[in-house]
Amino acid sequence: MMKLPESVKRLIDVLTEFPSIGPRQARRLAFYLVGRGENALEELSQLIRELKHVKPCAACFLIHQNTAPFCDICADPKRNRAIFMIVEKETDLLSLEQTKHYQGRYCIIGPIPKTGILEEWQKLRLKHMQSLIQKECGGVADEIVLAFNPSSVGDFNASLLIPELRTYAKKITRLGRGLPTGGEIEFADEETLGSALEKRSSEGG
Amino acid sequence: MMKLPESVKRLIDVLTEFPSIGPRQARRLAFYLVGRGENALEELSQLIRELKHVKPCAACFLIHQNTAPFCDICADPKRNRAIFMIVEKETDLLSLEQTKHYQGRYCIIGPIPKTGILEEWQKLRLKHMQSLIQKECGGVADEIVLAFNPSSVGDFNASLLIPELRTYAKKITRLGRGLPTGGEIEFADEETLGSALEKRSSEGG
Repeated sequence: MMKLPESVKRLIDVLTEFPSIGPRQARRLAFYLVGRGENALEELSQLIRELKHVKPCAACFLIHQNTAPFCDICADPKRNRAIFMIVEKETDLLSLEQTKHYQGRYCIIGPIPKTGILEEWQKLRLKHMQSLIQKECGGVADEIVLAFNPSSVGDFNASLLIPELRTYAKKITRLGRGLPTGGEIEFADEETLGSALEKRSSEGG
Repeated sequence: MMKLPESVKRLIDVLTEFPSIGPRQARRLAFYLVGRGENALEELSQLIRELKHVKPCAACFLIHQNTAPFCDICADPKRNRAIFMIVEKETDLLSLEQTKHYQGRYCIIGPIPKTGILEEWQKLRLKHMQSLIQKECGGVADEIVLAFNPSSVGDFNASLLIPELRTYAKKITRLGRGLPTGGEIEFADEETLGSALEKRSSEGG
């Protein structure tokens, strides 16, 4: 390492702090970047600088670059303002949005600590959703969907939030469980197959 | 994706082109960066811009930022100028340098294509090393080490280069094979154990 230029060493340090990037991959990325040429470096440098102008939505906390304080989803008058979905991550929101099967709004709560104690900023986000429900839904939303992962961690997270939310919604739901489309019964794990049996739906006539 | 700011989408596209980073990790990295705050973004943006001033060494092709055309290793008068080591990657060079067991010089040849046909720039690098041997070692180096991985791919790569190098060195060597330090005989694969037997060394009196 001592043989590398200072700027490259510093970049490797910064890249190593990135989530799920170790020191080896950080080195490889730095060498890759060096090889990309001036124009590509200038573009990337600019793109990163531009991120300064990205801000969280004042309602759901999804990042956006609008001049108004709201993201495109929260600003969309066609969205159902009486349904909220709590997700842990932006990436979960994007995956759910891509289905086009949900027309309500969101609240990005952030990754819930294993201790079960929300960070202060997470408590503020929850409070903020509650105050939106107060102001815009007369205190009771039609539904709050807890879109946590279908796992014991997700179950735990849901159990943490339900007491805080019970009075704020007519119903609190979670995403449906069962066999994933394209999956095979033979290879489904016991839990999944159990859910698929419990949640079986009637067909036809 | 359509819901994200243009600059973030473009950044995700660029990050997806990075080696061993898929679209999912690219998204996560972009969100991570957004969360880092202005100062961190400015620093990273600057660091990436500075990479423009990094250039490959005129002798071994390791990147450096010296005003002279040579990297610190090639500029070091204490290095043995009659021994060359060919490595595929900068990261291999750095790992070997860290051992402090090698005092010769390097040539970074780049990843050798599976076809066995060197890229034009790789042929130039090889030619450049040969011309250094002509100029500085009277046409014959004391040794050329082929520091390729101890694998069938590495064997193949070595077999490609040996004919090109035979007249340029008194001897051509590869890195020693055997049991890795800290390894256990019981768990060593057959090839490794075979090498360890073949290359066994006498101890004591």
